[in-house]
Amino acid sequence: MILEKEIDFILAIDALKNVNRRNFNYDNSRRENTAEHSWQVVVFAQILYPYARNSEKIDLGKVIKMLSIHDVVEIDAGDTFFYDEKANEGKFERELASAKRIFGILNEPLQSEFLNLWLEFEAGETEDAIFANAVDRMIPFTLNCFNNGQSWTEANVTFEKVKQLLRPKIERASQDMADTFDVLIKKAFDEGKLI
Amino acid sequence: MILEKEIDFILAIDALKNVNRRNFNYDNSRRENTAEHSWQVVVFAQILYPYARNSEKIDLGKVIKMLSIHDVVEIDAGDTFFYDEKANEGKFERELASAKRIFGILNEPLQSEFLNLWLEFEAGETEDAIFANAVDRMIPFTLNCFNNGQSWTEANVTFEKVKQLLRPKIERASQDMADTFDVLIKKAFDEGKLI
Repeated sequence: MILEKEIDFILAIDALKNVNRRNFNYDNSRRENTAEHSWQVVVFAQILYPYARNSEKIDLGKVIKMLSIHDVVEIDAGDTFFYDEKANEGKFERELASAKRIFGILNEPLQSEFLNLWLEFEAGETEDAIFANAVDRMIPFTLNCFNNGQSWTEANVTFEKVKQLLRPKIERASQDMADTFDVLIKKAFDEGKLI
Repeated sequence: MILEKEIDFILAIDALKNVNRRNFNYDNSRRENTAEHSWQVVVFAQILYPYARNSEKIDLGKVIKMLSIHDVVEIDAGDTFFYDEKANEGKFERELASAKRIFGILNEPLQSEFLNLWLEFEAGETEDAIFANAVDRMIPFTLNCFNNGQSWTEANVTFEKVKQLLRPKIERASQDMADTFDVLIKKAFDEGKLI
């Protein structure tokens, strides 16, 4: 069959619908899964793009591709809670092995294109990856600021930890996003979602 | 707050995670929701793009944007089962009202950009929209061919109906996709998933 590897791949990544993240949906009904997150971050990138610091140097189409596959590695490696330092040890190596297996289902040149997009996202140094990383950090933060913030409160996440881990990467991508971050983290703290 | 409308929008479309579609995930564990589908179709477009009949005339970045927001209208209008002719009456009008409300949360020019992408997808006449529509039809069809096909069997969907409603739009976009469709629909029929 002509599209055999493409279909093997799309069936393999269907498993991302079963990878649950720590943070909850806006309506607090349940934790979101990584497939849903991957969609939402693709849309968020499009609406935040006009506010990017270096938008004229950013290839939005490439950013969207990058974000659409950036968490596929969680199929083998699982979702690692951002604020759990111990769980984050060895994360890159686990995820790299997963990336090689999953993208390796595809033929070339697509398997290399996806692997390189993932590596570029992880390195976070190009204009595209700086922006993509900022949007990826902004979306669960935003959900926590407007839902009950349960993924923070249940893990006793602190104001300082969130600010330290998120703000520099967000501010590097966009002053407007950083200014909004400042307003929202104060609101979350005042509401008792962060200690 | 600077990003107020952008955040209102991303919170409003969070509801897409609660819109269930008829078809099941690959592992048959549950019906997929429209947020998950929107992610999977964005990835499928990237891997099927090399097989598109007129790929040199297709703007893949635009196709991905189009697919990422094409089902946001289901937040108000609900998912309409593709093979239910009665339910499909008045679908466009319901969805247009939803598109105007939801995209209208955003500032210009983004609200018009999204509305126009949605209208272009619905009309299905440009090279970008022809390809996007074909990929959008191919993904639930593929899932049904490799899972238990429950969304077909529970509604007594026929081989002829699937072929009639899907194949012309798929063949218009890609001969390779149409050839694969032919192999898979025969397999599904032989396995008793279609009558």
